[in-house]
Amino acid sequence: MINLKNTGLYTDFYELTMAQGYFLNGMHKKQATFDYFYRKNPFHGGYVVFAGLSDFLDELEAFQFGQDALNYLKAKGFQDSFLEYLADFRFRGDIYSCKEGEIVFPLEPILRVDGNIVEAQLIESMLLNILNFTSLIATKAVRIRHEAGERKFADFGLRRAQGLGSVYASKASIIGGANSTSNVFAGAEYDIPLSGTMAHSWVQSFDTEIEAFRSYASIYPNSCILLIDTYDTINIGLKNAITIAKELEEKGHKLIGVRLDSGDLAYLSKEVRKILDQQGLEYVNIVASNQLDEYLIRSLNLQKAPIDVFGVGTRLITGATDAALDGVYKMSEYDGESRLKISDNITKLSLPGKKNVIRYFNSVNQFYADAVILEDEKDIHEMIHPHYKDKRCRLLDMDYETLLLPVMIQGERKIKSQNTEEIAEFVQDRLLGLDGSITRLENPHIYKVGLSDKLMKLRDSIAFEKQNNGG
Amino acid sequence: MINLKNTGLYTDFYELTMAQGYFLNGMHKKQATFDYFYRKNPFHGGYVVFAGLSDFLDELEAFQFGQDALNYLKAKGFQDSFLEYLADFRFRGDIYSCKEGEIVFPLEPILRVDGNIVEAQLIESMLLNILNFTSLIATKAVRIRHEAGERKFADFGLRRAQGLGSVYASKASIIGGANSTSNVFAGAEYDIPLSGTMAHSWVQSFDTEIEAFRSYASIYPNSCILLIDTYDTINIGLKNAITIAKELEEKGHKLIGVRLDSGDLAYLSKEVRKILDQQGLEYVNIVASNQLDEYLIRSLNLQKAPIDVFGVGTRLITGATDAALDGVYKMSEYDGESRLKISDNITKLSLPGKKNVIRYFNSVNQFYADAVILEDEKDIHEMIHPHYKDKRCRLLDMDYETLLLPVMIQGERKIKSQNTEEIAEFVQDRLLGLDGSITRLENPHIYKVGLSDKLMKLRDSIAFEKQNNGG
Repeated sequence: MINLKNTGLYTDFYELTMAQGYFLNGMHKKQATFDYFYRKNPFHGGYVVFAGLSDFLDELEAFQFGQDALNYLKAKGFQDSFLEYLADFRFRGDIYSCKEGEIVFPLEPILRVDGNIVEAQLIESMLLNILNFTSLIATKAVRIRHEAGERKFADFGLRRAQGLGSVYASKASIIGGANSTSNVFAGAEYDIPLSGTMAHSWVQSFDTEIEAFRSYASIYPNSCILLIDTYDTINIGLKNAITIAKELEEKGHKLIGVRLDSGDLAYLSKEVRKILDQQGLEYVNIVASNQLDEYLIRSLNLQKAPIDVFGVGTRLITGATDAALDGVYKMSEYDGESRLKISDNITKLSLPGKKNVIRYFNSVNQFYADAVILEDEKDIHEMIHPHYKDKRCRLLDMDYETLLLPVMIQGERKIKSQNTEEIAEFVQDRLLGLDGSITRLENPHIYKVGLSDKLMKLRDSIAFEKQNNGG
Repeated sequence: MINLKNTGLYTDFYELTMAQGYFLNGMHKKQATFDYFYRKNPFHGGYVVFAGLSDFLDELEAFQFGQDALNYLKAKGFQDSFLEYLADFRFRGDIYSCKEGEIVFPLEPILRVDGNIVEAQLIESMLLNILNFTSLIATKAVRIRHEAGERKFADFGLRRAQGLGSVYASKASIIGGANSTSNVFAGAEYDIPLSGTMAHSWVQSFDTEIEAFRSYASIYPNSCILLIDTYDTINIGLKNAITIAKELEEKGHKLIGVRLDSGDLAYLSKEVRKILDQQGLEYVNIVASNQLDEYLIRSLNLQKAPIDVFGVGTRLITGATDAALDGVYKMSEYDGESRLKISDNITKLSLPGKKNVIRYFNSVNQFYADAVILEDEKDIHEMIHPHYKDKRCRLLDMDYETLLLPVMIQGERKIKSQNTEEIAEFVQDRLLGLDGSITRLENPHIYKVGLSDKLMKLRDSIAFEKQNNGG
């Protein structure tokens, strides 16, 4: 049974071998800075919703090595002096981060870790694991919310989730705009709304469908949603549901809805709506599920399918069809000196130094551009394209915000815990700052992210030196 | 922090509302049977490797509702009498299952649950969550093993995994044929081999690359793999690695390998091999990583890239590009009576009754066909195509095996715990029974799965009755 009591082991093996190396070299008293950023927007979209910060900080506070973990590492050949160091290990560094729910873009630092090199290195895998996945799913959920519009949508994905990934994913779904989840564990863990209907097995466990519906309605007269496709959606299921709806009316209750889980949802929802309305059951909602995602919901909307609630499973909870956000964690400073990584691919050149990000707003208060700056810079007046130096962007007399804020200093949390609903509201609020050309599902307008002149010069000088002096 | 101490909450909300309904109706003393099966092979392939059984049984034994869970459910409106029932809840049913690591095919029952309807219903979400995902990743790993051939491959995916899904996924990678994982938590949890090299941050934390390499080699003289692409793979990294290899030789050690993590892996691996060999360093391995999967490994092999070890990350650990196996859990019997679910789509008609699967072998001991039978049937002589009744397959005088075996009876585990290595060996052994036309990556030969005549007649009679008597 999985119990992360030894969170310290939630890491890649090489983090530990490198950490032991730093320690044996006496480097564990040296400070290092790492940036978390990503390179490519998922889902062919124009942005990412940054999520997972609160879970990351929770795990970071719990990140330690219990005796079991130390025994295991000893058996793997780690040295006693290093294991003694790990026994007392706690993260005591600083974390600067965008707010959870912030809209972020490729290449800009989203979160920065300043700490001794051992602590900054050891937390890498856990940081990437939580932030990459939670942000991926929050972003997917925002896309689904975008297409669902005023209609509700619920996360139904637990059964197809990637194991315990379901826990972060269900929370991320709510952050991105889902109204509820079916995942009870996530509901309890994060105090988020639960919902559910019934499965075919409920219907099958009675001799007839009408008995199954009648029994459910008598137990849940005020929250009854009937699944009508077990035997025949229109000819059997809907007919039985109408009978039950009228029986509920007689007792002073109302049927909440019927659910379609197979067949052509556009065709069936129209038929069902028409027949329900003919019976004076305009108030009965239609819930639809079955391999939905933002594209299918858009298609159903274009066909004017009268669906009130979308149940979204596999494609939300796994972030199909991307499955992963490509976020990375790169060293930008060591012992007061700026560092970078060069690559055959110029777009993979990392950014040196302790940095922050300034977001500029246009006159109608929409996001205009993000500038990556060195920490000691203030409002800048011009930024440079990260790869085409001749492309510059003026930033005069504009409102701006600094995106990276201290969330943990010397291991102490500096922000209060937010509940999931607050984060979800912040997401919707920030999305108002994005032009529709950026939020559209495909082929979005590319949002401008640039570098300050000072940062560009620093990058160039180190890259030149490394390439010309043999690394 | 995630701690599944209340495993009972690891479920969809509707399982609990249905369970309460069964309980309030007094149905919790009635027996039900559910089948776990899937419909579509993932990755355009021809089979699935069934995995996750041991984790599922572990979680099942731990499946209960602690006081916290009960308080939460009370706050959600569940009734006291049902909560009292849950307080004492333990799974006491029977599980019949294929062996972990078995090769399985669409539509056939892989695992069967016989229990009272409440227990059989409550475990559905957890069962699907674990078995679907673990089987998906084991299947992906087998495909990668198939292409890697005699070369080693390692799971490097933790940082891009779907949160804690990484734990099952790293184990599943080993089951499918990975030689090791970078995931230390999974290593400790399942006693599976760990491996790792170094990150760019190690190189960056020294003033020069050669110092970084020399330091690592002095700390790990017998397990040193140098990452050579931080500044310039051929002109800087490889040159420095050769210097270190010779220094190690002088001290009686050998450099294990160099790692390529960017650029054109086919071109670079050939250049690196040539230069290493010119220097008498034929023994130094080349490790390659960067968005690898079975297709890229096949392409590298076709180009005769001299790579010794593949590091496979995102695409293995997330099961890209499928992300989920479509396994379902359907009721087939209730209170001694056979049940099924009908669908608009004939291929989604479920199979009624308590069933088993017989696998027939041809004269060279390869899998010939799988027949789904009713439990009281023995070796049958002919099976029928599940959707085209005129298509029949003779099964005379063939060796056969029964696939579903008792693994838990009345809540007690009947099989001893297997270690991951044993399961992995069983997979490789079973794969020998599959013809190459079925194991190829794409457009595989479709393996024959059919029904016994008796099962077909049972399905037809219930489907007829349900459709003609209004469900």
